[in-house]
Amino acid sequence: MTDAVTLSEIGESAALARIFPRLPEAKATLLGPGDDAAVVAAPDGRFVVTTDMMIHGPDFRLAWSSPFDLGWKAAASNLSDVAAMGAVPSALVLALAVPAETPVSFLERVADGMREACAELSAGCGVVGGDLSVSAAMTFAVTAFGDLEGRMPVLRSGARVGDTVAVSGALGAAAEGLRLLFEHGVDERGEPDAARASALGDRTAAQLRPRPPIADGRLAALGGATAMLDLSDGLAKDAARVAAASGVAIDFASAALGDDPELALGGGEDHSLFATFPAGTALPGGFRAIGTVVEGSGVLLDGAPHDASGWDPYTGWSGARG
Amino acid sequence: MTDAVTLSEIGESAALARIFPRLPEAKATLLGPGDDAAVVAAPDGRFVVTTDMMIHGPDFRLAWSSPFDLGWKAAASNLSDVAAMGAVPSALVLALAVPAETPVSFLERVADGMREACAELSAGCGVVGGDLSVSAAMTFAVTAFGDLEGRMPVLRSGARVGDTVAVSGALGAAAEGLRLLFEHGVDERGEPDAARASALGDRTAAQLRPRPPIADGRLAALGGATAMLDLSDGLAKDAARVAAASGVAIDFASAALGDDPELALGGGEDHSLFATFPAGTALPGGFRAIGTVVEGSGVLLDGAPHDASGWDPYTGWSGARG
Repeated sequence: MTDAVTLSEIGESAALARIFPRLPEAKATLLGPGDDAAVVAAPDGRFVVTTDMMIHGPDFRLAWSSPFDLGWKAAASNLSDVAAMGAVPSALVLALAVPAETPVSFLERVADGMREACAELSAGCGVVGGDLSVSAAMTFAVTAFGDLEGRMPVLRSGARVGDTVAVSGALGAAAEGLRLLFEHGVDERGEPDAARASALGDRTAAQLRPRPPIADGRLAALGGATAMLDLSDGLAKDAARVAAASGVAIDFASAALGDDPELALGGGEDHSLFATFPAGTALPGGFRAIGTVVEGSGVLLDGAPHDASGWDPYTGWSGARG
Repeated sequence: MTDAVTLSEIGESAALARIFPRLPEAKATLLGPGDDAAVVAAPDGRFVVTTDMMIHGPDFRLAWSSPFDLGWKAAASNLSDVAAMGAVPSALVLALAVPAETPVSFLERVADGMREACAELSAGCGVVGGDLSVSAAMTFAVTAFGDLEGRMPVLRSGARVGDTVAVSGALGAAAEGLRLLFEHGVDERGEPDAARASALGDRTAAQLRPRPPIADGRLAALGGATAMLDLSDGLAKDAARVAAASGVAIDFASAALGDDPELALGGGEDHSLFATFPAGTALPGGFRAIGTVVEGSGVLLDGAPHDASGWDPYTGWSGARG
């Protein structure tokens, strides 16, 4: 049965030959995989670059995430960092390490997830190279590139007093998905359980297969955003970074944060885009106003200081489980 | 004692604050670490990119490699892939995952190794970004970038019948170093032993701290190289890749391969540069002639077919040791 063939049985070269055709092609590719390095177009003489790892244990459980989910999330979370600079994602490289007994069909599904994420979130972006290794700890290391189209990058440090604070994308949905998995996606002993997680259906999609608003990064830059970042550690914690870098405070309006402001402020991994715009700006794309930049430091909620210590639900999790 | 502070005790942000000042700066940096992504100059509108992982177990032993060695080798081996395209290395990003109990001083020494490797092998190249994670399996994922300075990349597929086959850098020295470590760098039970490995002195340097001839990649391109690649899996196996991509055979002259032609042909990890040049070319930099491109396929030694199956000494090694 083809599905049962493992990486150790067919080796790296044969596995790559099965994976590469499934990966998305990048329009910016001048030379693709197969030589010592790839060559990628950087039309304005610069490129944006970001790198991020996903590791079995701290970052995902195999009982909860399918290989398609993992490929999707590895792509989506890196595309979001590119978008947060105001750039258009152009290409990715993937360094993937898996246990030797991993079925090659698993790797194919990872490639499928990366392809679909690129197609749906940032058409034209694709994979230009990679590396496949053996490791006891399954590890995705994605490096993503973007094109600024001649614009200045949108930094964390540009927020000014009086700016409108806005967000595009969900707030707290990824954390709510993870809460559901911890509460209902486990067996009697508290171990991650694939069947029970699957029964949660779409309610875990924001956690397992996030859909960051990649195109809104470019729209924010074109629309005059003064600061921007990707929401990975929770709205409050990430807003505190913008506040510190810009020498201002961020005051959120609780009424704009939905039914559960604490979840919206504390939940991580949404990969939504946080941006500030000059007061009166017609907010572009999916951005909506959620607060104001004020004098001071740190994060406020309706004018009162808010603890921005953030969120780390995986702390202490044993890598031997799930 | 400062040396005993671990990553888990001070956290990722504080660890990065200690590491970043030790990393080399890149001349091509337009925006360095600290935002969602970096911005790097790509003066001719293109960039070269390659990614490679080093994983504890398959790729190194902590009893043999110091953290400085690991940082050095992670940089050097990736710089070499950039050089093999005929490009000048411009920047690196490092995604590093280590066990939570890793001392921060270990990470600082990794950064020192990357800095010294860049300074000595490719001055001006530096680190523009990174990611620090926790993993049971220590993992270095480096992505390296290069500038083609307006030239076409030198591919594996351009070797033509009659070309001179040349190499710059050592052949077999890294493998000899590893052989010495396996033979003398172990204790009575065959386990890697730091004191015994250290007693081998400089004889293991080619394995633990390789010095690929990075500048010769650019010189080869300027000198008319028709094909080039980085020697990572051994001369015979890598030459077979050029032969296959170019539709030719590579005939080595044993007299040009030193005292031990089998070691030169079979030993991996030298990260020397293999290139072909039109007959009669004055070979640039450190390149020396070692054979000729002929009609046919595969690899020959003095005109007779040679087995190019290559070399993988770590196969079967247990990740729980060394």
